[in-house]
Amino acid sequence: MHLFYTPDIDPASSSYYLNEEESKHGIRVLRLTTNDQVELIDGKGNFYTAIITDPHPKKTQLQIASVKKEFGKRNHYLHIAVAPTKNIERLEWFLEKATEIGIDEISLIICQRSERKEAKIERLNKIITSAVKQSIKAYHPVLNEPIPLSKLMATSFDGQKFIAHCEPGEKIQLKSSIEPNGRYLVSIGPEGDFTPKEIEDALHNDFKAITLGDSRLRTETAALEACFEMNFLNR
Amino acid sequence: MHLFYTPDIDPASSSYYLNEEESKHGIRVLRLTTNDQVELIDGKGNFYTAIITDPHPKKTQLQIASVKKEFGKRNHYLHIAVAPTKNIERLEWFLEKATEIGIDEISLIICQRSERKEAKIERLNKIITSAVKQSIKAYHPVLNEPIPLSKLMATSFDGQKFIAHCEPGEKIQLKSSIEPNGRYLVSIGPEGDFTPKEIEDALHNDFKAITLGDSRLRTETAALEACFEMNFLNR
Repeated sequence: MHLFYTPDIDPASSSYYLNEEESKHGIRVLRLTTNDQVELIDGKGNFYTAIITDPHPKKTQLQIASVKKEFGKRNHYLHIAVAPTKNIERLEWFLEKATEIGIDEISLIICQRSERKEAKIERLNKIITSAVKQSIKAYHPVLNEPIPLSKLMATSFDGQKFIAHCEPGEKIQLKSSIEPNGRYLVSIGPEGDFTPKEIEDALHNDFKAITLGDSRLRTETAALEACFEMNFLNR
Repeated sequence: MHLFYTPDIDPASSSYYLNEEESKHGIRVLRLTTNDQVELIDGKGNFYTAIITDPHPKKTQLQIASVKKEFGKRNHYLHIAVAPTKNIERLEWFLEKATEIGIDEISLIICQRSERKEAKIERLNKIITSAVKQSIKAYHPVLNEPIPLSKLMATSFDGQKFIAHCEPGEKIQLKSSIEPNGRYLVSIGPEGDFTPKEIEDALHNDFKAITLGDSRLRTETAALEACFEMNFLNR
């Protein structure tokens, strides 16, 4: 399978030109030629099968043979808000793995104890796109620009909201509290955890405190555990 | 908390000397001194609290104050047999994350389609030890030397055996087939998957074929998914 990510394709069109980079990759690297079959995903749920009609190395022309809509559509909506890790590779690893397992939206939250307060969205999005292609997903997870935690909490969310933290206090388990096939927002704090004040504010904003088990997990592991649990509980 | 991994400590002894490397780290880097408290884990389930009685930079003497036995004892036994990934970093990530989440034993299996047929156990063990300390676990997962898959299959295992693969065929889900608090062995293949012959041999050796969901997962993600599921189902 030769899969290309083509977010600008119109599902109604019968032909398409690969951009310069993709054309070069297809013709020069993969050595594709006229009548070879390729597959396209637009990140919005459409999976296309296409045939090369002109193997131009800068502007390869394709004829669309078929479109599958809502390919691999997920049965719930998962938004994870996670504090970027000090070592950015750990966040990158989370983004790759969450994309493979299943996620819809990621927000990067800046918290009081965050050691990292910025992240290069373009680079991180490339990692997501690569995982989308590798795991053959027609939906591309949305990655939002970093925002302060307080702003995330003030934004309305039509679904269940959770906050995972290690401070003392009453906590519930996801398996006994989620509505199946629902919409979920889960917040995961930075290396030093959320502050008691941040947790209090979250609870006032209808976030429910959850536990992700007895193990002491790193930020990116906790975020992935939440992603795993939500997918597993909706299977 | 100042945690040291001391696999050679005797649970019955009342004093202990840190080795040269740990002594140097404790005294020169952490700047610990007489009467400071440190914690020790032996990897066999014992968690010690100790007091520095002689802050020698090569042979720090400790007095054991207390020992907690079976600290964080797991309620099931999980052995994952995984083919080492072509890019060793992917296997290293798995080892770190599995240690955080909970695992007892890891075997590295050499399969017909394995692109990597060796791995440096000492280096990989250091990654596990580091994750053991970071996540404060008194039990150290056991990492076995690489072995051919056929040899693993011929070895007896007192528990349930599973094989995850992407070939067609009947597959069960772990959530409907594991005995709670049991002993489990799960096999995960290399990048190109197990061969049909390997799967057939496994089924003849009482392995049950399982699915880990609908997503196409990389080797290390599949291994981690199995680890997540087993821990989650036993929670």
